[in-house]
Amino acid sequence: MKIIESPQEMQRQVEAWRLDGKTIGFVPTMGALHQGHLELVRRTRKENSIVVTSIFVNPTQFRPGEDYEKYPRVFERDCALLQSNNCDVAFAPTKDAMYPAGATTFVEVGVLGETLEGEIRPGHFRGVATIVAKLFNLVRAHRAYFGEKDFQQLKVIEAMTRDLNFEIEIVPCPTIRESDGLALSSRNAYLSSQEREAAPAIFRALSAAQKLATRGESNVEILRDAMHEILANEPRLQPEYSVVVNAQTLEPIEKLTHKKPARALIAARAGSTRLIDNAALELTSF
Amino acid sequence: MKIIESPQEMQRQVEAWRLDGKTIGFVPTMGALHQGHLELVRRTRKENSIVVTSIFVNPTQFRPGEDYEKYPRVFERDCALLQSNNCDVAFAPTKDAMYPAGATTFVEVGVLGETLEGEIRPGHFRGVATIVAKLFNLVRAHRAYFGEKDFQQLKVIEAMTRDLNFEIEIVPCPTIRESDGLALSSRNAYLSSQEREAAPAIFRALSAAQKLATRGESNVEILRDAMHEILANEPRLQPEYSVVVNAQTLEPIEKLTHKKPARALIAARAGSTRLIDNAALELTSF
Repeated sequence: MKIIESPQEMQRQVEAWRLDGKTIGFVPTMGALHQGHLELVRRTRKENSIVVTSIFVNPTQFRPGEDYEKYPRVFERDCALLQSNNCDVAFAPTKDAMYPAGATTFVEVGVLGETLEGEIRPGHFRGVATIVAKLFNLVRAHRAYFGEKDFQQLKVIEAMTRDLNFEIEIVPCPTIRESDGLALSSRNAYLSSQEREAAPAIFRALSAAQKLATRGESNVEILRDAMHEILANEPRLQPEYSVVVNAQTLEPIEKLTHKKPARALIAARAGSTRLIDNAALELTSF
Repeated sequence: MKIIESPQEMQRQVEAWRLDGKTIGFVPTMGALHQGHLELVRRTRKENSIVVTSIFVNPTQFRPGEDYEKYPRVFERDCALLQSNNCDVAFAPTKDAMYPAGATTFVEVGVLGETLEGEIRPGHFRGVATIVAKLFNLVRAHRAYFGEKDFQQLKVIEAMTRDLNFEIEIVPCPTIRESDGLALSSRNAYLSSQEREAAPAIFRALSAAQKLATRGESNVEILRDAMHEILANEPRLQPEYSVVVNAQTLEPIEKLTHKKPARALIAARAGSTRLIDNAALELTSF
């Protein structure tokens, strides 16, 4: 596996591959790789001739006081994991190479980035959209792979890709979970054992809403109540939101229908760690 | 010459050319082509194997009450001019194809877009940066050609290209002028004969500042006074700004130096028509 640090070298390498007729698959990450990331890498490996994974802790998507400084950085370990999953290139630019002094341009995604996570973390999706636009221009891939665990991020990136006419296919990939349902996340490393014990309540709440929908319950208030109750029974979690929204627009809905896909999303704190998760709601009627 | 309306077809066509090893030169325009545009096309023709000119009156860079509706649209004439200048493709997408319902993403360029034109036309450069980012993704050219007449626009696009890592060379091209110095602009068509007579005072003011600099005058106040005086002597023009700025940052300066390029910029109204122009200031010392 090749490690590329220079944005210009990355661009040149991709251009050479493209001229050579190769298809390029791209997995953007902030490192601290877990099986969720590696599953993206393995899928990318299957569907493309070249696999590029970026490792870059993006400062512009963190707010002051968030965990940018303490975000886990384990570059050597990440590279070993990528290598053993047959990644071709780890693209690991420096902060200064990505944001040189004087850089002022940002990509704003509008309403999709202002709700839910965007309300709690203003500017977060501006940072996400900007770094992903930059990475798309550096790693001119044919396909980019994103986990559904960060569902709003996925929607923001889909919108940005469509609105700015990036010629790349966004491939959403299912969330990978621990056996008790906790969604894999680099931030799980922050959890104390007490917090780790409490965390799966989020998945249980989502599953409860999912089960109600499967049984034909279309009234979103009932689904929300079911989620709230489960979360309320876990005092070691402080819920920030637990909502049911239109899966495309992320706008709140009151009724599930067969036509418009819906999604349940939860954010909760366990101590000082924020956890997010989500699930598709599919209404079954009899 | 081929006329392409579909963004997807444009993208496919360029990809085919790139795989074929062609170099692509791009001239983005809003149509109503004049010799300034055609000079860009001719230069693009010389420096690239394929020439693409886009014709799209971009709604997002006009403010309510500006001239979006009445902006001259002469598509057949434009195509004839492009054809006779050996352009390969006129890319003319519809407004709905470029901004389908639900599009929410914008490119914000920051401070560079907030001064001068950006102060008078808030949101203008947001619209410019967004459409150019979109066009860069649709017409994946190796080089894009912009006239220096819209100097701030050129700087905004250079910043956007650099900050978002677009792999394209921005080629600035000198302003083309009438024999009396008036910079060519599609908006000159709006001028009454009285206004047309008054308009070259802008060029005379810029030339006066230029001449002072050439003679060694580094005091910007003196250069500004010279411009003001000439503009004040033309009552048919209403000046909006006439400034001397750092040519990279567009920040006001007080002294010309040999190290940092400076630029004089003027905006003035002739009746209801806004005219802008600018000139490089080169300090000569003895």
